[in-house]
This record gives sequence, C-alpha cells and structure tokens, in this order.
Amino acid sequence: MARRQISQATLSEHNRSRVLHYLFRNGTVSRANIAKALELTPAAITKITAKLLESGLIEETGDLEGKDRRRSIGIRLNTHAFHIASVKFARTLIRIGLFDLAGNELEMSEITAIDHRQIPEAVESVRAKLNAMIRADARIAAIGMAVPGPYLRRTGRTAMVSSMQEWRSVNFIDEFSHAFRVPVVIEQDARAGALAFRLFDSEHTNRHLAYYLIGEGVGLGVIDGDDTINGELGAATEIGHVSIDYDGPLCECGNHGCLECYCSAVAIHNEVNKLGLIEDSENLTHRAVCEMLFHLAFSGNSEAIDLVQRIGTYVGYGAVSIINAFNPKRIMIGDIVAGGGDLLLSAVQKVVNERVLPELAAATEIQITGPENDATARGAAAVAIEQLLSNPSEFVDVL
Amino acid sequence: MARRQISQATLSEHNRSRVLHYLFRNGTVSRANIAKALELTPAAITKITAKLLESGLIEETGDLEGKDRRRSIGIRLNTHAFHIASVKFARTLIRIGLFDLAGNELEMSEITAIDHRQIPEAVESVRAKLNAMIRADARIAAIGMAVPGPYLRRTGRTAMVSSMQEWRSVNFIDEFSHAFRVPVVIEQDARAGALAFRLFDSEHTNRHLAYYLIGEGVGLGVIDGDDTINGELGAATEIGHVSIDYDGPLCECGNHGCLECYCSAVAIHNEVNKLGLIEDSENLTHRAVCEMLFHLAFSGNSEAIDLVQRIGTYVGYGAVSIINAFNPKRIMIGDIVAGGGDLLLSAVQKVVNERVLPELAAATEIQITGPENDATARGAAAVAIEQLLSNPSEFVDVL
Repeated sequence: MARRQISQATLSEHNRSRVLHYLFRNGTVSRANIAKALELTPAAITKITAKLLESGLIEETGDLEGKDRRRSIGIRLNTHAFHIASVKFARTLIRIGLFDLAGNELEMSEITAIDHRQIPEAVESVRAKLNAMIRADARIAAIGMAVPGPYLRRTGRTAMVSSMQEWRSVNFIDEFSHAFRVPVVIEQDARAGALAFRLFDSEHTNRHLAYYLIGEGVGLGVIDGDDTINGELGAATEIGHVSIDYDGPLCECGNHGCLECYCSAVAIHNEVNKLGLIEDSENLTHRAVCEMLFHLAFSGNSEAIDLVQRIGTYVGYGAVSIINAFNPKRIMIGDIVAGGGDLLLSAVQKVVNERVLPELAAATEIQITGPENDATARGAAAVAIEQLLSNPSEFVDVL
Repeated sequence: MARRQISQATLSEHNRSRVLHYLFRNGTVSRANIAKALELTPAAITKITAKLLESGLIEETGDLEGKDRRRSIGIRLNTHAFHIASVKFARTLIRIGLFDLAGNELEMSEITAIDHRQIPEAVESVRAKLNAMIRADARIAAIGMAVPGPYLRRTGRTAMVSSMQEWRSVNFIDEFSHAFRVPVVIEQDARAGALAFRLFDSEHTNRHLAYYLIGEGVGLGVIDGDDTINGELGAATEIGHVSIDYDGPLCECGNHGCLECYCSAVAIHNEVNKLGLIEDSENLTHRAVCEMLFHLAFSGNSEAIDLVQRIGTYVGYGAVSIINAFNPKRIMIGDIVAGGGDLLLSAVQKVVNERVLPELAAATEIQITGPENDATARGAAAVAIEQLLSNPSEFVDVL
C-alpha cells in the first residue's frame, strides 16, 4: 500500500513537471490544449493546474480565442512569481546574481581578485550574501551554482582547478547544500552555460549545441539530443584537458599539451607578461589584462593583433576537436576570451575551415557571445530552473 | 479525426515498444508485473500482449510462481522467432552475419581483401548475399549495417574513409535501403559496437560506456545515460580524427595529427613495412600484418614488443582524450588492434595512469575485447534489434 502511494506521488510529480515544461516552452496555452498535447485527461489537467495555481507557479490570463470563436482561459508560467539566486565560481572571480524564471537578470554583483588564501573567506562571503538575498526576497525558491570542472557531482568537489588548486579543497555540497532555506543545485560551469542557451533563447532550440567557455579556465558544455552530456561522474566534455599536443607542456592535471595551457585567460596573462605588452600587467587580474589586450588589438597594435590571432588559432584547434568529438550544430564561444570578438573568431573559423571535413565545417555555426552576456551566470540559474520544473514539489509547495 | 487516429496508433506503438524493451531487459515476467512496472491497465496489457503473441515476437512460458503461491503465466521475448542479418563494412573487409534477437551469432562470413576498384563489386556481392540469406530464412526481420564514420546519417554517406576514400562514393541508403523485403538500419561502426555491449551483455548495463574501435580505422561509440552520443549529423565521437598533435602529420580529413594516423591497423601496417619486421608485409592485408606482429611480440621478439608498446602508448593518448571528453565508466578496446592483448593494454593503462586525474583514472575501467568477439558485427545486429523493439510495426505484423 505504501509503495502504491509513493508511485502515485511520483506519477503526479511527473505530470506536474510535464505541464510546467510544456508551459515553459509554449507560453500561454488553454487547459484543453495542454491536455491534448500531453495526452492527459481533462480531469487530470484540472487537478494539476489547480495545485500549480495555488502554488503561484502558474497564472491564468485573459481569454484566449479558440476554434469556433469560443473563448477559453489561458494558462502560463508565472515567471515573476519566483526568483533564483545564482553563483558563478571562476578562479579569482565570483559573480552572484538574481534571475526570474524566464532567465532575466535582475541583479548582479561580484567578489573579485581573491587569491588562494582568501578562498575560505570568499566561501563565507558567498554564504552571507546569499542569506541576505534570501532574507530580503521571499520569492527566491532556489540557488543555482556553476563551478569549474571537472566537477565530481556525487562528491561535490572539483577534481582540479588549474592555477588555483586550492579550490579543490572546497566541497560545494558540504559548504552550501544545507546552508539555506531553499535547495541548491550545482553544475559544471560550461554545462550550465549550454543549458542557459537551451532554456532561455528561442533561437537556440536546436538539439545539438556546445557552449565553449574560455575564461580563467577552458570548459565545454554540450547538449546532444534531449540532454547534456554528463559522463559517469559528471566530468565529461572537459575540452580544456583534451590535449592538442601529446608532447606539449605538462598541465597541472597530469596530461601534456592541454588546450587550457594555450588559450585560457591565465595563459594569455602569462603571454602578455612575457611580451611586456601591457605595463605592470603582472599586478592586474587575468580579466583586466585580457580586456586591455583586446582593446590594444582593436586600436591597431600589431603585436596585440598577432597575439589575439595566435590565441584564436589555439581556440580553433579546440573547436576542431569539439566538432570531431561532439558534432554540434552550433558552438557558442563565451566568457572572458570571447572579448576578442571578430578578430578572434576569424582566426578560429580559418582553422576550422582548414582542418574540418567540408561537410562538417559547413554544418557547424560558430558564434561569439560577448562577455556582457555571461552564459555561465545565467546557466547557474538555468540548472536550478530546470530542476524546479522537473521536481517542483522540492522547491515550491504544490502538494 | 484523422489526427486522432494517428495519435492513437502512435500511442499503441509506444506502449508495445515499452513492453518489448521491458521483456528484453527482464526475461520472463507475468502480465500483472508488466502492468505494474509500466503503469498500464491490465486491459491494455492483455490487448498488447495478444497482438505481440500473434506476431510471434513474444511467447508464453509455463507457470510462474507468484505471491501467495498463486500461479500465473509468464511472458518472454521469443528471441529465436526472428533473425537479423548484419553487415560490418570496414575498409578491405566486409563481414556478413546472422543473429537472433538475443545477439547470439548464428552465422558469419567474410568478403576480404577488396581494393578500391572492387568496391562496386563488393556492394553487389553484399546485396546478393543478403538476398540469398533472406530467401533462405523467412525469419529474417531486419538488416543492420555498421559503416565507418564519420557517417552522415541523413545523406547516407561516410564523409571520409582514410586510406580508402572510394568508399565515400557509396551511398548506403541508396544502395541498400530499398533493396530487400525487410528494413535496413545503418549506424556508424563503433556506435553500433557500444550498443551491442549495452543490449546484450548483462555485465555492461551501466549507463556510461565507450567502445573504442581500433581496426582499419579508429572509431568510438559512447553511451551516455540513456542514449548514444550522436551529434547533429550522426558524426559525433569521431575520436580517430581528434588530433593528438596540432603540428602532426596531415590526415586525409584535413586535420593534423589525427589519432588514426598513429595507431590504426593501416598505420601499423605502414610501420611494419618501414621496419621490415615481417617478410613480404607489403603484400599482406592490414589485419594479417597486425596478427603476425602480435604473434611475433608474444613470442618474445623485442622489436615487435617495442612496436606494440609504442602503439599502445598512442592508443593510450586516445584513451586520455576519451576520458576527458566523455568520462565513461568503462572503455572497451576492440577490433584488430585489440589483438595486442595485455601487452597493448598495459601500455594504454600506463599512459592513462600518468596523464589522467587520479579520481578519473581510478573510476575508469579499460578492457580489451578480443577480435574473436567482433562487437561491430554484433552491433550491426544490435542497431536493428533496438529499432525493432522501438518500432515493432515497421518490422513485424503486430497491427
């Protein structure tokens, strides 16, 4: 008997989730059309929507014009009713934001320039900031976090964080999962970014999408079909540690010639220091140095242009590996190094055109998504929203 | 009204497919237990099983002992009632087999040593052989084909076939899809191999599995979660064309330093010719040369041992990329080069231990599956069986 009840509860949650996902994708819909699309009985829809209305997750709209000019009430997701707090952990940067359920950014703040000794402090600051946000905003229903990969999702730790290994000692599950009155959902950063494109941007509805994160680290998130590619431990699609030269420099992960060694913001910072391109660059943040380098290049400095093109070539080698490994329809290049814009992109595209089979090169769109659109920060919200749509009763009172 | 009928038919097929998949995984089960597991009404199960019994796809067994010692009739998939013809296309080798629905090999034959001028002839021979098999065996319900990747599944062509580009002119869909009284299902070779492990071997039920095919070409098939990784055009997981050296030798695909250039049977053949290790090796097939090389190494020839270890090191670089890109729980190394056995495997494992993060290396099992167990040939059958279980009405009369 107990088993039967659990099964019934599971089924109800499953159907609630189907309704929520359907509304998320389709906007305002009548109960009759939801019932038809999801093959549920009108009675079931009435019951499910009553609970969801009561919870505030959905709302009724004015009359919809139906066939035969009969009017019916529309239902839609109430995207303003709940908020999601999001945290993006990079290496020396942490961004904390607030989003609605449609992925609109409502607030964004940063904790910057931490060095490794400040990590415990930074963790404490994040916790304090989130608690303050939650106290101030009763609508916050979840916290989403994006962390550098390879993130071992069951143990809660990142297996390595090049150039700032001390992050490895942070167990995100232990530090955060029970620290708040709302649930916390944690995902690898680039995978969260890919999910943000999939969930929030109607032009990215296609089912084969890669978010190629080139920031303080180099990461990748891939949507293949209905799902992200995760791997057994959640450590798949770590393009930053796919080697482009088996005899190349030793990476902190143990591998040689990892892509990350050639084109991350950290690698660019080292290169700028070596070339002496920017005064006092040693004492600036990785991001500041990259921004100044791109500014120099855009203003015509030939040494800077050469360096950006060289970086673009390495980013291109990575893109070639991405295409041969994952065959996405679209690759979105994002984060700090995406600030290289068209100059960077044309170097990437050149490598892809030279090194990828013509049929595949022609079928792959590569785009830059500017640093002003931080897919990872939105992605941290996206993973929480995806969970909320899939298991609403864990986030909101719908029972 | 017409729309409604289609929807009902789709739903019936969907439920038939769920029952068939459930029986495939669970052996002999009572109608009551199927109903419970799949949340279908007893009436629906009675109707579905009646049709499936009539079609011959399932059969009733003797009494099962149920709870309260009540007896009920068991139902199981009738794995002997239908046969699957399978074709594995490599470069100079074609294998044609016959399997039952449990993946047992009933027959196997080969067309070997074709060169590129003989491709049209070979295609004709395959067609003739299959037609003869179908005439002789009324139980054949489908043909499965495994072809070298990157196979563009919508157009029906392989985008490149290193060392034997003439295969590119063969459109598998045009040549085969309407040539027989039964449907033909075509998949990239290594992906078919991965599916064979997933479907037929109870010890490979885990959801993150890679089949690393090292034969005349180098390919990869990955199961991540519920599905194979396919990519937009079906050209994902082409590890053979993921570069291990951006400055390496030019591959026929346009990329430099492709893994395939270092450790395919073709590359090994070239290396053996260069070293003069085997008399008259230039005139032997790739497979024969590899077999002789392994034999030499096993009998203690130090030059042969060195070469096998060197090949194993390159296979290892590929395994490192596979782990960082796909994070499978298990990597099965198969096909011709797997004949290198433990000697090869220990070189692979050494590279993985040195170059993969300890947490990931410890969590990844790497195994050799001997050439006597040709996962790709079984895989060709597996892709057809998977389709048959998913869309039975396209293969068998169940309406």
